[in-house]
Amino acid sequence: MENLQYKDGKLLILDQRLLPNEEKWIEIKNKEQVFDAIKDLAVRGAPAIGIFAGYSMALFSKDNDIYKLKEYLDSSRPTAVNLSWATARILRAYESGKNLLDEAVAIHKEDIEMCKKISEYGLSLLKDGDGILTHCNAGELATSKYGTGLGPLILGKEKGYNFKVYSDETRPLLQGARLTSYELEKAGIDVTVICDNMAGFVMKKGLINAVLVGCDRVAANGDVANKIGTSSVAVLAKYYGVPFYVLGPYSTVDFNCKTGDDIKIEMRDGDEIKKKYFEKPTALEETKCLNPAFDVTDNSLITAIITDKGIARAPYEKSLKELLK
Amino acid sequence: MENLQYKDGKLLILDQRLLPNEEKWIEIKNKEQVFDAIKDLAVRGAPAIGIFAGYSMALFSKDNDIYKLKEYLDSSRPTAVNLSWATARILRAYESGKNLLDEAVAIHKEDIEMCKKISEYGLSLLKDGDGILTHCNAGELATSKYGTGLGPLILGKEKGYNFKVYSDETRPLLQGARLTSYELEKAGIDVTVICDNMAGFVMKKGLINAVLVGCDRVAANGDVANKIGTSSVAVLAKYYGVPFYVLGPYSTVDFNCKTGDDIKIEMRDGDEIKKKYFEKPTALEETKCLNPAFDVTDNSLITAIITDKGIARAPYEKSLKELLK
Repeated sequence: MENLQYKDGKLLILDQRLLPNEEKWIEIKNKEQVFDAIKDLAVRGAPAIGIFAGYSMALFSKDNDIYKLKEYLDSSRPTAVNLSWATARILRAYESGKNLLDEAVAIHKEDIEMCKKISEYGLSLLKDGDGILTHCNAGELATSKYGTGLGPLILGKEKGYNFKVYSDETRPLLQGARLTSYELEKAGIDVTVICDNMAGFVMKKGLINAVLVGCDRVAANGDVANKIGTSSVAVLAKYYGVPFYVLGPYSTVDFNCKTGDDIKIEMRDGDEIKKKYFEKPTALEETKCLNPAFDVTDNSLITAIITDKGIARAPYEKSLKELLK
Repeated sequence: MENLQYKDGKLLILDQRLLPNEEKWIEIKNKEQVFDAIKDLAVRGAPAIGIFAGYSMALFSKDNDIYKLKEYLDSSRPTAVNLSWATARILRAYESGKNLLDEAVAIHKEDIEMCKKISEYGLSLLKDGDGILTHCNAGELATSKYGTGLGPLILGKEKGYNFKVYSDETRPLLQGARLTSYELEKAGIDVTVICDNMAGFVMKKGLINAVLVGCDRVAANGDVANKIGTSSVAVLAKYYGVPFYVLGPYSTVDFNCKTGDDIKIEMRDGDEIKKKYFEKPTALEETKCLNPAFDVTDNSLITAIITDKGIARAPYEKSLKELLK
């Protein structure tokens, strides 16, 4: 499902904070709205943020100094590499006298093309009727179309495949329940939400033929950083003999990062665990919570890494480099 | 921490539904209140229900036909074996002309004694400073004193041990956050709540020296049914080389149940996953949820089963029987 529309000079975004309870589109009329939408996660997912920033730079540079605008937008979420990448690309187009909106549309189209390639490679590993387990959200809401982790399912649906998908709710921020189950439901795909601690149960019952997840960063040796809980799903998949596939743009592979040990894990506020989304706190005010946002999945647990350049299998140190050839 | 008090002819229970946000004691004055407290889970945990039912039978048989009273109380939670066991025991005491309150106190004391034995055996496998992971709640709130899964921690605290405990929040009903972290905090034990999907993270970081869990039913071959998610923690513990200990009364071993395959898993309403405890639903009304209440942990994943009769290790078929000798 779409999360952004640019039509007749108007830029609209879907407010993802309100999903799944409300589907509200916001018209973006100025740079302050762009800043807030990115900072407050109305738009989320690295590719989606990049596309949104591209259109925003193109549209609002008319009323703003484009250099200051870039700096301003980049500061809305400093760790989002795709954000500054997209604004830099529009800036380069400006400096070489290109049409900025054409460049924004190009970023958008290229993302769709890339996701489609990932989805095609991924789909080649699945068969009609497969039971699929996913964790977190790496679908259209986080990109533009198809998505990465969910791409094979959405492309498969277009081609007439019937999958039976189980979506981990993905505590503490519940992206699997709030976003993944929502967009799969909207795409007409059979989806069932489970708690994260039920992933082993559905595997043991023989309901899962493959696990599909996205990735935030891939090390040169194939270790993968992704949403917290991913590595536990990978351990379970190994134990129960279920293939574990990681999907993402080839640009997610960071060859400067040798292994997963070099990836710093963001630790977030414990109140996300015991307060956010709940009617009442689930633990005492004085009780500590540990809240890592990501974990690292060891390459030995990964059956294949699926990118827009092709499919890599162990040993990843070699196979990931060879995809470039 | 106590969940029941009988003093000066008054029976009081702690309303566990309100934890951790409110510590409210209710005086139980009639059989209807007993029925509601058990049915609505103000009192929960098999041993705790048995103790409460024992006192209730003894007190309210003064104003009621004791046979009808037993039938009435038993119907409050028909699957709770400890409930009908305790009411039957008071009935036998009545038929043999014993003092009923003495019998209720005996049930209570025997439970404390049994939990203490489990706790001592469990503590013998731990050392001061250990990092411990727990799942769900098998502590004093579910029993009377010490508990089963948490018993070694509470007894250890009395003896001056310092443990560093990580408590899985235990979705969907959050017993690990709401109850376990609450009672460990009250006992002065260092506890940190994590989401269920972070159990692998803390093991990988080397923070966990042992996993302690309770059990709902143990098959003759050592397969264990316990709260959903337990078996996934066991798979992770095996992968990361962490001992996985199951603790419970010897009476939990069901020799008529050959293996875990013979244990029927209760499937509960999906709304517990997407609605209960949340301010707003986490998924669409039409989205399905799968909600198994328990799972079965294969005996090959269990380092030891710790009972009041001693410690059993593989092969369990043999060792569990030998504990009786």
